[in-house]
Amino acid sequence: MMISLYDTTLRDGAQREGLSFSVADKLRILQLLDDFGVAYVEGGFPAANPKDAEFFERAGRAGLRRAKLVAFGSTRRAGTRAENDMNLRALVHAETEAVALVGKSSPLHVMRVLETTLDENVAMIEESVRFLKHRGREVVYDAEHFFDAYREDPAYAVRTVRAAADAGAAWVVLCDTNGGSLPSWVHFVTLAVGREISASIGVHTHDDGGLAVANALASVEAGGRMVQGTVNGYGERCGNANLVSLVPALAMKLGLDCAPAESLARLTMLSRTVSEIANVIPDPHAPYVGRCAFAHKGGLHVAAVDKVPESYEHVPPAAVGNSRRAVVSELSGRGNIRMRARELGIDVAGREAAVLAQVKALEHRGFQLEAAEGTVELLLRRAAPGYAPPFELGDVVVVAMSGDEPASEEAPTTLSSRATHAMHARASVTVMVAGRVVDESADGNGPVHALDRALRRALIPTYPDLEAVRLVDYKVRILDPDTATAATTRVLVEAACEGARWTTVGCSQNILEASCRALVDSVELFLARRQSEANKTHGAPARSAASM
Amino acid sequence: MMISLYDTTLRDGAQREGLSFSVADKLRILQLLDDFGVAYVEGGFPAANPKDAEFFERAGRAGLRRAKLVAFGSTRRAGTRAENDMNLRALVHAETEAVALVGKSSPLHVMRVLETTLDENVAMIEESVRFLKHRGREVVYDAEHFFDAYREDPAYAVRTVRAAADAGAAWVVLCDTNGGSLPSWVHFVTLAVGREISASIGVHTHDDGGLAVANALASVEAGGRMVQGTVNGYGERCGNANLVSLVPALAMKLGLDCAPAESLARLTMLSRTVSEIANVIPDPHAPYVGRCAFAHKGGLHVAAVDKVPESYEHVPPAAVGNSRRAVVSELSGRGNIRMRARELGIDVAGREAAVLAQVKALEHRGFQLEAAEGTVELLLRRAAPGYAPPFELGDVVVVAMSGDEPASEEAPTTLSSRATHAMHARASVTVMVAGRVVDESADGNGPVHALDRALRRALIPTYPDLEAVRLVDYKVRILDPDTATAATTRVLVEAACEGARWTTVGCSQNILEASCRALVDSVELFLARRQSEANKTHGAPARSAASM
Repeated sequence: MMISLYDTTLRDGAQREGLSFSVADKLRILQLLDDFGVAYVEGGFPAANPKDAEFFERAGRAGLRRAKLVAFGSTRRAGTRAENDMNLRALVHAETEAVALVGKSSPLHVMRVLETTLDENVAMIEESVRFLKHRGREVVYDAEHFFDAYREDPAYAVRTVRAAADAGAAWVVLCDTNGGSLPSWVHFVTLAVGREISASIGVHTHDDGGLAVANALASVEAGGRMVQGTVNGYGERCGNANLVSLVPALAMKLGLDCAPAESLARLTMLSRTVSEIANVIPDPHAPYVGRCAFAHKGGLHVAAVDKVPESYEHVPPAAVGNSRRAVVSELSGRGNIRMRARELGIDVAGREAAVLAQVKALEHRGFQLEAAEGTVELLLRRAAPGYAPPFELGDVVVVAMSGDEPASEEAPTTLSSRATHAMHARASVTVMVAGRVVDESADGNGPVHALDRALRRALIPTYPDLEAVRLVDYKVRILDPDTATAATTRVLVEAACEGARWTTVGCSQNILEASCRALVDSVELFLARRQSEANKTHGAPARSAASM
Repeated sequence: MMISLYDTTLRDGAQREGLSFSVADKLRILQLLDDFGVAYVEGGFPAANPKDAEFFERAGRAGLRRAKLVAFGSTRRAGTRAENDMNLRALVHAETEAVALVGKSSPLHVMRVLETTLDENVAMIEESVRFLKHRGREVVYDAEHFFDAYREDPAYAVRTVRAAADAGAAWVVLCDTNGGSLPSWVHFVTLAVGREISASIGVHTHDDGGLAVANALASVEAGGRMVQGTVNGYGERCGNANLVSLVPALAMKLGLDCAPAESLARLTMLSRTVSEIANVIPDPHAPYVGRCAFAHKGGLHVAAVDKVPESYEHVPPAAVGNSRRAVVSELSGRGNIRMRARELGIDVAGREAAVLAQVKALEHRGFQLEAAEGTVELLLRRAAPGYAPPFELGDVVVVAMSGDEPASEEAPTTLSSRATHAMHARASVTVMVAGRVVDESADGNGPVHALDRALRRALIPTYPDLEAVRLVDYKVRILDPDTATAATTRVLVEAACEGARWTTVGCSQNILEASCRALVDSVELFLARRQSEANKTHGAPARSAASM
């Protein structure tokens, strides 16, 4: 049986606090959703927003392969004619194959929020649907607050959706707008409405009770044929139903057809790419696609999964494009170290206990190695026979000051009207590399930038591959929050090169020292990996360019 | 009807990647749960962990008012006698009122993971339960993987839990250990088991499908009388059932009795305090208790909630100890500014448009005001008639260097065996305050610490109240991750004083400049609030100590 996926990341998802998509972001996400095989993509509210109007214009030329693009708007205003309604005209003007129209089902909302009569509301629904249907649009009718309305006045609630269906809506979507319904109620109401109307039924749920995914599944089990949601559950308040959790539940657990078979394995990629575009840190504990979704920490679980994978995994991680991971932390046993080294192809035979002792000592001092797998890898590489560090860091000096340089063109922002001078920074480092002592200095927009540039200047003559490495993220956490700026600071640095990404950690009371350690380890890991690959390719012995 | 809440934050919750509780942390959480009115608190695994053994010793003296403390362990090993099993003896030794015993229900697990026979597994369950029951314990029997086992071999699965019930277990808890079950399946299996055994039935669910809360509710609707879960849903992989979402669903939506009536209003406090102890950033989008759970962003929704609160709120925020919030962002209308100012008691009549323009300009440059409500408040205060800034910042210089000072006793951690010198920092600031120009310098463990100390030195002679303000958190994000250290840096600073907390934001390519802005605004907001309170109390006009 076929279930239609309806994505509203670009409209309802963008209501998430802190989230804002550019037109280019929206076009990229549209493309990803079309590639994935989503049936409908709701692009926005053309009447409300010039950015959305631009999006529809450019999306029309995007050449979608599978998805139908949908413009979203409300039923006509009370006391007007559909033909004269600016909102409905903007919907037509968006020139999409399908149109979503939201209307009221609840007497409370009709009378107190819209401030019109119950009959006029039904007329608004009927005439608006008919207006769009006559212009060749597939109409998706969203019945706002339906599950609350059905409790308030079931006869009126059904009358509103019957009006939409009779006027030609292809879909009647029952909305749990406030997100407060329970799955048993959604199941009951969906069954009841299914007996009353001929249009196909869909569901639109919110996560205010932590039940959005369950409510969507309850609707499908009661005969619903469309689920509306967003990638990663983005949305206002607590978010919308998470399509990333719904797709594998529909496909793998209920055996329903909702996307092309090959898409499931791209689920993790879809989730992470959209979170990158949205500039939202991916939830490591997200079902199916989170970094921790198949991570095993307890020693007993690690041993069991090693023997029988399905013992602690509800689906095979690869089926959704994710992977299994043994967590290395102070709670680890030697088995976790051994499994991790094996995953990385590093031979630490016999030194697991020594590495474990280092891990525990570092975690005790505030390093969080679970979040910095690059640092764990570096510990393992250093423990491997024949490891030689590619360089050594000596002294470091950093200066930052305001007021000495002319303001740059990209002037710093000023909160108040008072003048504030830009600060600039300079760093100097001493490095031992290839048998020589090298001193280098560099300016930067900030102290970490200056430090990074000085370090690269010192190393690139010996290791030109470093040119291709970029720092892609930099995070700071205070470990003892009760004395924030005097407390130990943990810095995580994420670097990337040709598709590979790795994270290293530094820890100190001084943020610049912690940054420096994380930066230096990030570079050392990159060079150590290159060296190890070169050894594998050429069979050469481990060799260091550094003076030992 | 009564539902027993069973909390396993201290045992299963601690399996979350990155989380580690000290004994003191566990005792604090135990106290919070007892105060809240949770019926059972599972404290840990005394056989596996000396930290847990210490916890039980100290918890025995904690004087719980309502909660029963529970020690957790496994059935005896295969081929031994219960009397000789170290694990069972450790459970007895923990001297708790109740004991949780986990055993296997799935032939796959019995034969391939435990590597014993189906009959021996039943004997292990029976004898272990009887051993503890005879020693006066209330036995909670956790049937691991029960929902998978029931699919695999329903007769054997039922046989295992009947053995536990017949041996005297008070509770049989059906576990969705891998978190992959759907609510409809949990409902079906719970009903089926309820017809077969006499013990009370409970449920233990995991969130690998995003359905842990829904599965727990499905069990209750099928006759389950105990729900196991953790505060904030902490737990291995994707986490456990979130008790913070379950409690209001049980109490407010199903009308069941699960905690004292007055506890519901302390739900948000419970969630946030536990996340503070766990050092996990609270999820702003968490149902009921998240900072965004009742935050309204869209202009239409803000207007509707203003008219009819229940129009977009599934429960009254105050009922769960949370509050409504109008989000101020680039998507805001003047209504959001007006509502926010009203919430804060600031009079900006007529200047909403000017404040909104400032908000939009700052957000465009990378300030994220949704996360920094202190900065929004400062913008509103500055817009209010008669505002006078309490001080003005002039030049700033910061120096950080390694190798010049003798290593302190608290020596910085060294990742490799190579020597690294500690870095130290010094900051100098010029401030205009109370009509004078003040220069101050200070050393610090890091540059931000030095800056904070220098600023305080300059201001405290004029504003002694500042002594009581502490910086409690400091967060850094890179805005343009493709050029991490050269990109714009956003710094959020959270300060606290006598229970109040506020967050301000700074934004610059230079991390020290961004930090400085956030710090300075944090201090200015504190002083501005004091000034405003003093004016209200004494009816004095706004007055500035700064030279204008």
